[in-house]
Amino acid sequence: MKFKTFIIGYVFALALFLFAQRHPDASSPVGFRGVIDLTHTVNPNVPTYEAGENAAYQVRTVATIEKDKYFARNISLPEHFGTHIDAPAHFAPGSWTVDQIPVERLVAPLVVIAINDNVHNNPDYQLSVQDIARWEEVNGQIPPGALVMANTGWESRWNLADRYRNADAKGVMHFPGFSLEAAKFLVQARSVVGLGIDTLSIDYGPSKNFEVHQYSLGHGLYHLENVANLDRTPATGTMAVVAPMKLAGGSGGPVRIMALVR
Amino acid sequence: MKFKTFIIGYVFALALFLFAQRHPDASSPVGFRGVIDLTHTVNPNVPTYEAGENAAYQVRTVATIEKDKYFARNISLPEHFGTHIDAPAHFAPGSWTVDQIPVERLVAPLVVIAINDNVHNNPDYQLSVQDIARWEEVNGQIPPGALVMANTGWESRWNLADRYRNADAKGVMHFPGFSLEAAKFLVQARSVVGLGIDTLSIDYGPSKNFEVHQYSLGHGLYHLENVANLDRTPATGTMAVVAPMKLAGGSGGPVRIMALVR
Repeated sequence: MKFKTFIIGYVFALALFLFAQRHPDASSPVGFRGVIDLTHTVNPNVPTYEAGENAAYQVRTVATIEKDKYFARNISLPEHFGTHIDAPAHFAPGSWTVDQIPVERLVAPLVVIAINDNVHNNPDYQLSVQDIARWEEVNGQIPPGALVMANTGWESRWNLADRYRNADAKGVMHFPGFSLEAAKFLVQARSVVGLGIDTLSIDYGPSKNFEVHQYSLGHGLYHLENVANLDRTPATGTMAVVAPMKLAGGSGGPVRIMALVR
Repeated sequence: MKFKTFIIGYVFALALFLFAQRHPDASSPVGFRGVIDLTHTVNPNVPTYEAGENAAYQVRTVATIEKDKYFARNISLPEHFGTHIDAPAHFAPGSWTVDQIPVERLVAPLVVIAINDNVHNNPDYQLSVQDIARWEEVNGQIPPGALVMANTGWESRWNLADRYRNADAKGVMHFPGFSLEAAKFLVQARSVVGLGIDTLSIDYGPSKNFEVHQYSLGHGLYHLENVANLDRTPATGTMAVVAPMKLAGGSGGPVRIMALVR
């Protein structure tokens, strides 16, 4: 009877574990329940940091199915257009160009910090160390090697380029960003690999000296700008795959970002 | 004693499962041991399907750190350049353009079928249904929703564009591809989402009518061409993340491909 009871305990544990896993290896080699696309479509109406910069996006059809039996185009665009990555070399001479960012840093636990409420009252709001502390109280400490994104709610303006740039009469833009203090904390105390945001820049709109760019790109991080669908992305528990065009010597480039939901 | 024996069985199973998992959730939110980059760097010397087509790749520096305090460039290139994706709309009118491919199809179990030996004796070799059968004898049946890539060994010629195109005196190229029969089997009997290869085309070099393109793009698959590092990628057990530029209306585009190793 002893052996039988042992077996019953064993089988009970087995059943529990298979149930808890939900996607056991055998039936799902992928092991993810879903994918969230954090990328905006690249099109001629994309809002740009410099007003009118989107004229640089050009598409030319070079073959059509009617005439050539296949369809193909040539494309032209700035490296920093639409949902894109800033490589460290965008600001830090001699550091990684976009093709040199180690691929291990492009697959990372994703942390999404919501600051919509603060932004609602102040479009120039900068994500603070306090916002990070509040996030950690709920979700636990940010793991080393994470990618940290700010969900500011700014995406609702994406299809209204003027409201997304939000320039005042003097041409100064107003949109939220990361504070320098928050960036320093995330680098020094949390060893993150990158920062992301759903606005035109990791530095807030009125920034003149791009202090966060200078600091965090200078410390080997990458930046992701004009990120999409952060309002649909859990605060923690997903894995980001950051997939930039592998441009030799690039200062950055178009990027596809996916969050894999476990 | 019965309860104690039950507990011993339970704990024994628990220990076994934790050991077998190797990367339990608690210690590794990412859950992958490594990343293989299946992407070639985009540069002016990339071999192209049409001879000299790489002249269409142009880079212009628009800002330098010395002059502007930041570094940025504009880029121009064909959608089908370097490691790239063919969307169904490349050959099948009215079907998915590159931005319309459902993101769930871009994260898929990766199958790598090596045909180097056959290619060594015949550069025009086409991956056959028999090659698939041989792979399945060793690795088990290809799961539904997989991405199937041919490792032909052709990558060793990547930096020698003439040898990679391998055109004869009449201008006919000679490099390996997928046979139409293999593509039909993979679509009809294995429900794959895409095909990939380490040559210029899924159809072999001498192809005139692009039969495999017609068939598999016509059935909603995507193609990945000029894939890198397949010789370093396990035949099975990795998960591919296929991350194309999200070009509105694109026939295809530059793609970053990563294999996540569990």
